[in-house]
Amino acid sequence: MKFTISHTTTSSKARRGTISTGHGEIQTPIFMPVGTLGSVKGVHQTELEHDILAQIILGNTYHLYLRPGIEVLRNAGGLHKFMNWQKPILTDSGGYQVFSLSANRKLTAQGAEFRSHIDGSKHLFTPESVVDIQRIIGSDFMMALDECTPFPCEYDYAKKSMHLTHSWLARGVNHYRQTEALYGVEQTYMPIVQGSVYTDLRQQSAEFIASQQCAANAIGGLSVGEPEEDMYAMIEVVNNILPADKPRYLMGVGTPMNILEGIDRGVDMFDCVMPTRNGRNGMLFTQKGIINIKNEKWKNDFSPIDADGTSFVDSYYSKAYLRHLVVANERLAAQIASIHNLAFYLWLVAEARTQIENNTFYEWKTLMVKQLAQRI
Amino acid sequence: MKFTISHTTTSSKARRGTISTGHGEIQTPIFMPVGTLGSVKGVHQTELEHDILAQIILGNTYHLYLRPGIEVLRNAGGLHKFMNWQKPILTDSGGYQVFSLSANRKLTAQGAEFRSHIDGSKHLFTPESVVDIQRIIGSDFMMALDECTPFPCEYDYAKKSMHLTHSWLARGVNHYRQTEALYGVEQTYMPIVQGSVYTDLRQQSAEFIASQQCAANAIGGLSVGEPEEDMYAMIEVVNNILPADKPRYLMGVGTPMNILEGIDRGVDMFDCVMPTRNGRNGMLFTQKGIINIKNEKWKNDFSPIDADGTSFVDSYYSKAYLRHLVVANERLAAQIASIHNLAFYLWLVAEARTQIENNTFYEWKTLMVKQLAQRI
Repeated sequence: MKFTISHTTTSSKARRGTISTGHGEIQTPIFMPVGTLGSVKGVHQTELEHDILAQIILGNTYHLYLRPGIEVLRNAGGLHKFMNWQKPILTDSGGYQVFSLSANRKLTAQGAEFRSHIDGSKHLFTPESVVDIQRIIGSDFMMALDECTPFPCEYDYAKKSMHLTHSWLARGVNHYRQTEALYGVEQTYMPIVQGSVYTDLRQQSAEFIASQQCAANAIGGLSVGEPEEDMYAMIEVVNNILPADKPRYLMGVGTPMNILEGIDRGVDMFDCVMPTRNGRNGMLFTQKGIINIKNEKWKNDFSPIDADGTSFVDSYYSKAYLRHLVVANERLAAQIASIHNLAFYLWLVAEARTQIENNTFYEWKTLMVKQLAQRI
Repeated sequence: MKFTISHTTTSSKARRGTISTGHGEIQTPIFMPVGTLGSVKGVHQTELEHDILAQIILGNTYHLYLRPGIEVLRNAGGLHKFMNWQKPILTDSGGYQVFSLSANRKLTAQGAEFRSHIDGSKHLFTPESVVDIQRIIGSDFMMALDECTPFPCEYDYAKKSMHLTHSWLARGVNHYRQTEALYGVEQTYMPIVQGSVYTDLRQQSAEFIASQQCAANAIGGLSVGEPEEDMYAMIEVVNNILPADKPRYLMGVGTPMNILEGIDRGVDMFDCVMPTRNGRNGMLFTQKGIINIKNEKWKNDFSPIDADGTSFVDSYYSKAYLRHLVVANERLAAQIASIHNLAFYLWLVAEARTQIENNTFYEWKTLMVKQLAQRI
C-alpha cells in the first residue's frame, strides 16, 4: 500500500491523496459504503461501481465469520471473488459487533468470548484470530481487534479499556507481521485509537498507535453519542499525533457535515451506515439539505428526486413516486434512496477533493455545512 | 389496439401475434411482470426494460386506488408518467383484492363495498367506478370488475357469482364505451370469463363474454387451487368459444409449465407473482428445472447462478453468493432472484414465440414441461 499526498490546504488540515492497493487506487478523502455481509444493502455491485462511483467498500469480520463462514470464503478465494467486487475492501474487525450484537460476551486478556446473535453458538475472537479471519476474507485493509467504548464512559473504564485495546494491538501487529496474504494481494493492517472523550487518553492512545508504525491508522470510539464538539476536539488531538504521511480513517462517521469537518481536520477515510439506513426510512441527503420524503409536502411533487444528483435514480424517479413507494413499504424505495444517498456521499467527497486541489476547501466547507444541515 | 396473428401451429392451438397499443407493440405469447403498487417488487424500471426485457407490466386498481390514490395519479398524468414506464400497462380491476384483502366486504347488485386493508376506511367499487379509476390510471388494458370464485366452489354459488359478474360486465362495457381516455392514449377494456371448474358455466360465460365484442378477452378464476387438469380443461372449453382473432389473457397463471400449456391451448397473455414472490423465498426457475438456492448443496457452488440465463445477474453472481444472501436475509437476494426469475419467464415466452414461428412448438413444449418441473 502506498499513500501519496498531492495537495494540502492553507486554512485547513484537509489533504488530497491517493492510496494505491492491490485492487487499484483510492482517491482521498473518500467515503466507503458499508457492505456488512458482503452486500451493500439493496444495491447491486454494478450500481456501486457505475452509479454510485464507490472506490472501496466495507465488510464486517464478525458478520462474515458467522455467515457465510470462513470455510465458504476460503473456498471462494476471498470476499472479492465471492461477491464479485474487484475494487478495494476494508473489513472491520468485528470488535464493535461483539459488544453491540452478541450475547454473553466476556472480555479477557486473551480476547473476546461471545455467543452468536444468530444461533447462540460460542466463539472466541483474539487479536490473532481476527487477523487470520481477515487473511481468509482477503480484505485490502484489515482492522485490529479493539474495544469500542460506549458514551458516556467513566474515565477509569475508558483507561482500562484503552490499555486492553493496546495490549491486543501489540499481539495483532505481531501476528500480522508473521503471516502472509493468502491470495497474493497485499493486506494493510490498521490499528485503532481509542480513549473515549478524554484528551489525555486520546493522546496516549494516538502515541501508542503511531509507535506501531503501521501503514495506515484509524480513529475509533467516536460518533457513539457524544456531542459533536467532543468528537471534533478528539479528532484534532489525535490527528496532531498520528503521522501525517499515512492515511487516517475515522470509523463510523457520519453525517455529511461530520465528514466535511473530519476532512477539515485531516481525516482521509470515512464509513457510515447512515446513507443506506436513513435512506430506508425515507431520509434523503442533498446539496441543499435534508429531505424527509415521507412528508405530505412531496405527495404531488413530480419533480426529479434531486435535480443536482449524480445517479440515474435522481432524474429517473420523482419525489412523489419515491414518497409513494416509501409510504407503501415497497422494496424499490430503499433501493432508490440508498443509491441516491450513497451517490451523494461519493459526490460530496469528490467535490471536497476538487476544493482541496483548488485550495478553496475551507471556505466551501463553511458554506456547505450550513446548507447540508437544513431541512427542506 | 390492433392484434395480428403472424403464425399458427399444426399440432397445437398456439399462435404468434403482435398487439399494437398506444405505448408500443407487444409480441405474443407474452408474460407480464406484476407491479401491483406501481413497482415490480425489488426491480428498477430500467432493469425491467433492459435486463428482463419486459414488454408490458401489470398494476392493480385496488392497490393504486388506496395508495397513492387517484388524486396523485391524476396529477401525475397517469401511472406511466408516475412510475416512468413508457411501455404498455395492464391494470387488474381490483375485484380479486376486494375479496382476498379487504375486510367487511359486501357484494350487492350495485357493486362491492369494502373496507381498506390499510386503514379500515369504507369504499365502494362499481363496474362503472373501476372504469373511471382505470381511466385515471391510464392503463392500456383495463379489466372489468368481476368476482373471482375460490376453489372449491359450490355449483350454485359459482352460477350466481357468474351472473353477477355478467351483469356487472354489461354495465362496465357500457360505461367504457361512454367515456374516453384522459391522456390521449387508447385504452382497451377486457371482460373476464368466470364459471369455476364447471364446463357448462364456463361455456355460458365464454359465450356471454364473446357477445360483448370487446377487443380482448380474459379468463379468470383459475389457478386458485384447482387440479391442473381442471385448469387446462377449462382453458380448452373457453378458448373454443372466445374469438380466435382477439388476444386471450389467462389471469394469474402460473408456473413455467402452466404457461407453456396455456400457450398450447391458445392463450396469448399471462401474469403471475410467482417469479418475484417465490424468488424472494429462494426459488429459482431455470431451463433445467427448479433450484431451491437455500439448499446446503449450493453452499460452496461458485458457478454462475444460471449459465443459460439471459440477465446480468445470472453470470455476475454465483449460486453460493446468492445462497448466502438468502440465508442472511439480505435485500439484494430478492433483487437478484426477482431479476433472474422474471428474465427467465420472459426468455421462456420469447423461445415459445420462436418455436411457434418454426412450427415446432408442440414438440418443444412436450420436452420442456418435463425438464422445467425437475428439482435440481
